[in-house]
Amino acid sequence: MTLSPSVQSGSIAAQYATPGFGIENLPYASFAPGAGQDPRLGVRIGGQVLDVAAALADDGGASAAVRAAVAGPNLDLLLSAGRPVWDELRARLTALLGSADAAPALQPHLHSVDAVELRMPFTVADYVDFYASENHATNVGRIFRPDQAPLTPNWKHLPIGYHGRAGTVVPSGTDVPRPKGLRPEPEGTPSFGPSRRLDIEAEVGFVLGGSAPAGEVKLADAGNHLFGVVLVNDWSARDIQAFEYVPLGPFLGKSFATSISLWVVPMAALEAARVAPPAREKALASYLDDSAAEPWGLDISLEVALDGQTVSRPPFATMYWTPAQMLAHMTVNGAGLRSGDFFASGTVSGTEKDQRGSFLELSWSGKEPLPLDNGKELTFLEDKNEVVIRATAPGPDGSVIDFGEVAGRILPAV
Amino acid sequence: MTLSPSVQSGSIAAQYATPGFGIENLPYASFAPGAGQDPRLGVRIGGQVLDVAAALADDGGASAAVRAAVAGPNLDLLLSAGRPVWDELRARLTALLGSADAAPALQPHLHSVDAVELRMPFTVADYVDFYASENHATNVGRIFRPDQAPLTPNWKHLPIGYHGRAGTVVPSGTDVPRPKGLRPEPEGTPSFGPSRRLDIEAEVGFVLGGSAPAGEVKLADAGNHLFGVVLVNDWSARDIQAFEYVPLGPFLGKSFATSISLWVVPMAALEAARVAPPAREKALASYLDDSAAEPWGLDISLEVALDGQTVSRPPFATMYWTPAQMLAHMTVNGAGLRSGDFFASGTVSGTEKDQRGSFLELSWSGKEPLPLDNGKELTFLEDKNEVVIRATAPGPDGSVIDFGEVAGRILPAV
Repeated sequence: MTLSPSVQSGSIAAQYATPGFGIENLPYASFAPGAGQDPRLGVRIGGQVLDVAAALADDGGASAAVRAAVAGPNLDLLLSAGRPVWDELRARLTALLGSADAAPALQPHLHSVDAVELRMPFTVADYVDFYASENHATNVGRIFRPDQAPLTPNWKHLPIGYHGRAGTVVPSGTDVPRPKGLRPEPEGTPSFGPSRRLDIEAEVGFVLGGSAPAGEVKLADAGNHLFGVVLVNDWSARDIQAFEYVPLGPFLGKSFATSISLWVVPMAALEAARVAPPAREKALASYLDDSAAEPWGLDISLEVALDGQTVSRPPFATMYWTPAQMLAHMTVNGAGLRSGDFFASGTVSGTEKDQRGSFLELSWSGKEPLPLDNGKELTFLEDKNEVVIRATAPGPDGSVIDFGEVAGRILPAV
Repeated sequence: MTLSPSVQSGSIAAQYATPGFGIENLPYASFAPGAGQDPRLGVRIGGQVLDVAAALADDGGASAAVRAAVAGPNLDLLLSAGRPVWDELRARLTALLGSADAAPALQPHLHSVDAVELRMPFTVADYVDFYASENHATNVGRIFRPDQAPLTPNWKHLPIGYHGRAGTVVPSGTDVPRPKGLRPEPEGTPSFGPSRRLDIEAEVGFVLGGSAPAGEVKLADAGNHLFGVVLVNDWSARDIQAFEYVPLGPFLGKSFATSISLWVVPMAALEAARVAPPAREKALASYLDDSAAEPWGLDISLEVALDGQTVSRPPFATMYWTPAQMLAHMTVNGAGLRSGDFFASGTVSGTEKDQRGSFLELSWSGKEPLPLDNGKELTFLEDKNEVVIRATAPGPDGSVIDFGEVAGRILPAV
């Protein structure tokens, strides 16, 4: 691979960087170096994770504020510390990892990614799930409400969202038992039992920091609160959801588990991935109107694999609403923001059939099963199915930003 | 007042108990004795609050587990400790406060309620809001969806609920700025601005403890997780809610603020208030079917005052779904329960006009304004309006359990 100009020969980056995990990325995680050891904050370079607090402990180039922000077992302290500390930390890590002189002091604080245990990267405060893909919302409208216009009248006026369950956001690799609930039956009353229409939702999630107790985070101020990105699989029981969701929205059809990837890619790593969002069809309220600024979506390419076979490639660049708009919307009513708040984009679906981010859409509610390489058909999830969502985005100078993966396996109902 | 038989003359209870805050109640709070002092756990008797940790520090009758559970600044440690510790603590406090011998040692740890500052009594983990009043759901259905059956087909099969915003659950006395958002207009596109239909929802909230990571809290096990009760005012911007809520439910119309009362009344104080719920019209799924047990609602009488005038008296005894059913429902899909999880009942409305728990219902969406004593009319909330919700329930031996109040004042939009 081509090394960034800032990387010196002999530096840690020069020795360890791999495509996707070069010095342009530097995602954070909470890791325990070994069984029984306390978790700490790490930053990834190639197949190595650097113990950040240990590396900066005696570093005269890091401020006391930065050293305090990296002292915890995960990202929580750093999220609270705010944008200036985020920027200073990233600049310092970039300098150290690219410096030949710094390499000997960093070397003892490197751990192989394969040898460590990753934990939840941050404590989720509130979790909001949006519905920001026009293709997804249109598909779902056609499937669930075939007698109505596919998009509800509000859809292009505001990014629709709702609160999910923060306590069941789980780390990648967590098994997901099939949830039970009330399922509609073709005739008569609903029946209680394991979901028969268990699904995924391939989404992109945004980790927030720098609290804003009075809410009202403006579009132009969004960068002070958007810390980084994870991949999300918002598992969904479509039958339970269909019976319960009118009039107050999804509840048990979603709340059993939401899986997230374990490496938090900083927003600063995604500047080369910024793309213009689709043209807006409706004039927007002032707090959502980004036409005078330079609105940006993100060119993140997702890949959904079922039991090892790629079944979809959802393009995040097609999202109608931008991350800044989602953040401005969720706080415009004065709802305070806390560090650790988290929002996801909603299912990412492109215009093509093989770009849909849910099995509901891929199999058109089970009516058009997709043939799989293993001789089976894809409709909804079966017990023991494993779903892995991966993603990459363009980095600077032709580099690639890798998001790692969010994986989960379905267990039989308890 | 008549003293409980367990109260000795000369005891703290005998000296200080008042109607509503006798030895039968003993609600908990987080209080700071004075400005700048750290908050701690308190229990109320009459107009006094006892510093629990201080009172039990040298008490040979309290176990180490109890002393550890009361050592925090609020209820969090106690909620985690679980039912046996809750029961032991209450038994010990009842014995000490009713004992003449114990009075001299307790006396230095009493503070006048008027002299202390009350704080949030616990850290809210996830917040769920239900919709458990048939009268309320019927009224709302008639107002919002006049062309359809007032109750959705699912309503009598399960307690409908959704996740609210935990980070904006605020203590009684917090001012509430009028929220802004997109409001539907009679013609054309929606407009952005301060809510014109700001409302209250008088509810009863349940504080949960004793975590259940795998969810599935059975009806019979609900008592191990229901710690206590607070009053709730779930402020609601009806215009913002009406425009946003299809298809994913309420979001910004609710998320700006939810106020709670500051004294947490233990479930153990409410055994005399148990009442049978209304007859069930539909056969229930096994996890909700309480017909073979002794199902119980709670005979809590609420009172809603607008600027000092009582405008409604909602009866919680009329709720269709019981607290145990709500808890069983929210966990049946395997959603884990954390200590500090919190759920509210949804608006409490009785069958009569003057028993409705929202202004939406009291004024029938503004079409039937209620004349007020001050010459004004009640429709929706005006700036500077103050709403206070109080409640009582029957206690043992003819006593009364007082819940205190949840109060809040509307400020002009920012």
